[in-house]
Amino acid sequence: MTPLQRDLSALLGDSALRLDEAALEYLHDSTEMQGLRGHADAVVAPADSVCVQALVRWCYAREVAIVPRGGGTGFAAGAVPFGGVVCSLERLDRVRSFDPELWRMHVDAGVTTGRVQRLARESGLYYPPDPGAVEQSQIGGNIACNAGGPHSFKYGVTREWVTGLEAVVAEGELIRWGGAVRKDVAGYDLRSLLVGSEGTLGVVTGAWLRLIPAQEASLPVAAAYAGLGEGVRALGRVLGSGLVPAALEFFDAGCVAASMAAFPGGLPEGAAFLVLAEADGDRAAVARLAGELEEALGQEALTFRRFEGAQAQRELWRWRNGVSFAVAARRGGKMSEDVAVPFDRLERAVAGTLEIGRRHGLEACSWGHAGDGNLHATFMIDARSEADVKRALAAHEEVFALALELGGTVSGEHGLGWVKRAQFERQFSPLEAEIQRKLKAVFDPKGLFNPGKKVG
Amino acid sequence: MTPLQRDLSALLGDSALRLDEAALEYLHDSTEMQGLRGHADAVVAPADSVCVQALVRWCYAREVAIVPRGGGTGFAAGAVPFGGVVCSLERLDRVRSFDPELWRMHVDAGVTTGRVQRLARESGLYYPPDPGAVEQSQIGGNIACNAGGPHSFKYGVTREWVTGLEAVVAEGELIRWGGAVRKDVAGYDLRSLLVGSEGTLGVVTGAWLRLIPAQEASLPVAAAYAGLGEGVRALGRVLGSGLVPAALEFFDAGCVAASMAAFPGGLPEGAAFLVLAEADGDRAAVARLAGELEEALGQEALTFRRFEGAQAQRELWRWRNGVSFAVAARRGGKMSEDVAVPFDRLERAVAGTLEIGRRHGLEACSWGHAGDGNLHATFMIDARSEADVKRALAAHEEVFALALELGGTVSGEHGLGWVKRAQFERQFSPLEAEIQRKLKAVFDPKGLFNPGKKVG
Repeated sequence: MTPLQRDLSALLGDSALRLDEAALEYLHDSTEMQGLRGHADAVVAPADSVCVQALVRWCYAREVAIVPRGGGTGFAAGAVPFGGVVCSLERLDRVRSFDPELWRMHVDAGVTTGRVQRLARESGLYYPPDPGAVEQSQIGGNIACNAGGPHSFKYGVTREWVTGLEAVVAEGELIRWGGAVRKDVAGYDLRSLLVGSEGTLGVVTGAWLRLIPAQEASLPVAAAYAGLGEGVRALGRVLGSGLVPAALEFFDAGCVAASMAAFPGGLPEGAAFLVLAEADGDRAAVARLAGELEEALGQEALTFRRFEGAQAQRELWRWRNGVSFAVAARRGGKMSEDVAVPFDRLERAVAGTLEIGRRHGLEACSWGHAGDGNLHATFMIDARSEADVKRALAAHEEVFALALELGGTVSGEHGLGWVKRAQFERQFSPLEAEIQRKLKAVFDPKGLFNPGKKVG
Repeated sequence: MTPLQRDLSALLGDSALRLDEAALEYLHDSTEMQGLRGHADAVVAPADSVCVQALVRWCYAREVAIVPRGGGTGFAAGAVPFGGVVCSLERLDRVRSFDPELWRMHVDAGVTTGRVQRLARESGLYYPPDPGAVEQSQIGGNIACNAGGPHSFKYGVTREWVTGLEAVVAEGELIRWGGAVRKDVAGYDLRSLLVGSEGTLGVVTGAWLRLIPAQEASLPVAAAYAGLGEGVRALGRVLGSGLVPAALEFFDAGCVAASMAAFPGGLPEGAAFLVLAEADGDRAAVARLAGELEEALGQEALTFRRFEGAQAQRELWRWRNGVSFAVAARRGGKMSEDVAVPFDRLERAVAGTLEIGRRHGLEACSWGHAGDGNLHATFMIDARSEADVKRALAAHEEVFALALELGGTVSGEHGLGWVKRAQFERQFSPLEAEIQRKLKAVFDPKGLFNPGKKVG
C-alpha cells in the first residue's frame, strides 16, 4: 500500500480499498472499445454517505482529485480517472424507502437501474429511463449523465424522474435538494443542475425517484426499408400523424448489415433501414396504436412486423441491446458519438455520418433514438490500430461540427466526459463557457471533482 | 419625463415608454388582493431582444435595477418593482416559428400562454402547462416561475416543455441554451436553472417549446365528501389503484362553502370536500378511466358526477378558475400560499392550515393540485385592514413552517418573488443558500436583475 492508500484505509476502513487486480476494473468504462484506460492513485468504495463526506473532506484538504464512479458503463470516459482517488458508489446500495402506493422510491446512488426497474415492476409501477446495461449502471451514474434510452421519447430523460437529490459537495458537506415532494420552485433548480453534471460539481449519494403506474400492455413493431429516404419519410409520418409511441428507434444500412443475422425472424433482402417503435397503454389503445403505426410505417416498407408475446419481445429487445456489440464486432472495435439534432435534420445527420466516414476511409453507420433526433454516429475500427483510432477521432470532429451546424448538440445522452471535453468550447460561446466554468467554481473552488471532464 | 425616462426614450424609442396612468398598471400583480403595490423609476416595453440587450447594457453600466415583467399575473410579487426600470416583454409577441408536424413552437417571451395553447389546439397539438389567467400570463413569466397548473400532475411543469431558451444576461449579452433539439447533455443544465429563476439571473426573451399530440377526448369528474378524511382517502385510492388522471384537484370545506353556489349542477348539502379529476386519452381509454375513477372516488362520496359534453366541461373549468375569486369575495380579499408537501402529508397540511387560521382568528381554506401535494393555503381577509394583513402574514409564517416540517416546500409553483423572500433562509441551509447566492452572482455580479426577489 502507498501512504495515500494507507491513509484512506485508516479513514474509510480496510474494506473500502480496492487494491491491485481488483483496482484495475475501475480504470476504464465502455470507451475501452477505443483502447482508453486511465490511472488512479487509489480506488475506494465508501460504505455510506457519511464516509463519502469524510473522503471528500480529506481529499479537499489535501488537494487530491475525486473521481466519482457508478457502474462504469459510460461512453464518454466520464468515470475514467487520470490520477486522484476513484470514489465508487457501489456500496451505497440500499433502497432507503419504497412506497408503491405513492409512486416513489428513495435510493442510495449505487443502486442499479435494473433493480429500480424490477422493484417498480413487481409493484405494478414503471421507472422509464432505460440506458443500456441496466444491470451494471447505477442511478447515481444515470443522474450524472442525465441518462436517456429508447423510452425517453415518450417518457423523458432521467432528470424528469428525480424529485430530489442528496450530494456531497466541497468541502465535504451534504446538501439535499427537493425530496419526496413533486413540485418545488422555492430555490434555483440545483437538482437539474446536478443532473447531467457528470460528477464535476460533487458526488451524488442518494436520490428520490418518481415512478408511474405501469402500462397494461406494450407491443413493439418493426418496419424495414430499402433506404434512408424511405425510412425517414416513414418516421415523419409517425410524428405528422400525431402518434405517440413509447419508443421510436432507427437503424441505418451499416447497422442493419452488422446486426441483421441476429434479428428475430430475420430481415428481407435489400433491407437498408429499420424502424422500431413501441405502442404502450391499455390493451385497446395498444391495438389501435399498433394499427396506426402500421399505417404510417407500412407505406414504402419492405416488411412490417408486430412482436406479440413476451418471448418475441424479449428477443427483440435483446437484439436491440446487442446492436452496439454487433457493430463493434465488424472490425473488433468502434468509436461512437451520441449527437442529437432537431428531428427534421435527422436524415442529413445520418447521411452526413456516412459521407464523413467515406472521406476518412472508415466504415460508418448510425442508429438511435429517432424521435429525439439522437443518433449514435459510429465508425468501425480495429481498436488496436492507432491509425484507425486517429482517423476515427478526426471523423468525430466532423460529426460534431455537422451536429452543431444542424442546430443540434454534441451529446444527447452520454455527456462530454473526458473524450468530448474539447467539444465544450465548440458548442458554447466564450460567454456561455465562462458562465459554466464559474458555476463549477461555485461548487468546486479547487477544481477537484472529476477534473478535466465536461468543462475541459 | 424625468432624465432617466428621456434617456430610455432616446435608447428604445418613444413607443417603448409607459408614462403616467399607463405606467401604473405595471406596479402590481395578483398580490394586489393583499394591497401590495410597488414603484418604479421608469416602465419600458422594448420592441425586441436587441432592444432588451440595449436596455440591460444601459442599466448595467449605470447600476440601475431591471425588473422583468410578463403578464403580471403572479402571486408572489415577483414582477412588482421597488425602484429601477420595469422591462415589460409585452411587445416581444411574435411566434417565431411553428412546426405542427414536428410538435414544436419557437416564440418570443411575451406571447401569451393562451395563444400558445390555442395555436397548438388548432393543429391537433397540446401545450400542457395551464396556470390560471392564461390570456394574460406570458410564456416568459411562466418560465420565470416554472408555472404548473392542474394538468401538471400527469404532464409536468413548464420546465419539461421548454427545450431551449434565449436570455439577455449581464452586461447585455444574449445567450441561447438548447433549441429545437429535444435532448442535450453537452453543458450544465442552464436551461433548467433559468426556468424558475424569477428574473433574477437575466431576462428571458425567447423559448423553444415542445408540444404533444392532443388527446382524442377528456372527461372531468367530480366527487363530493362529507369531510377531509373521506376525501383524502378517496384521493389515496386513486393513486393506490394506479390510475393516472390528467388532473387531480381538491377543494376543502371553506373553499366549497365559498364557491358552491356557482358549482355547475350544484353540490349536496353537507359537502365539505370536493375532488375533481380528469380522464384523458382515446375515447375508449377515457370511458374506462372514468369508470375506474368512479370506483375509487365513489366510495364514501356524497355524489359523483361526470361532466360530459363541451358545455358542461367549459362550465366546470370556469368554476375551477373562479375559485380563487370566490374565496377572495368572502371578505373582500385573501392571502394565499402555494406550499407543497409529499402526497401522504396532504391531509395534515390541509388540517394544519385550518388550525393555524383558528389560532390567528382568520377564516381559512385550501385547495389545489392534490396529486402533486400542492395546496393553496388561504386566509380570507379584508385587504384594507392592516390588522387582517398582519394576522394573515403571521399565519403564513406558520404555514411555511408546517410545509417544511412535513418534508415539503414553501412554494410549489408561484415562486418566492418579493412576498416570500424571507422564506429562502427558512427552506435552505446556510450552505445551500450561499451556493444559490453565488450562482446568482455568476449571472448578475452587480445584483441588478430583479433585486430583492427570490434569494432575498
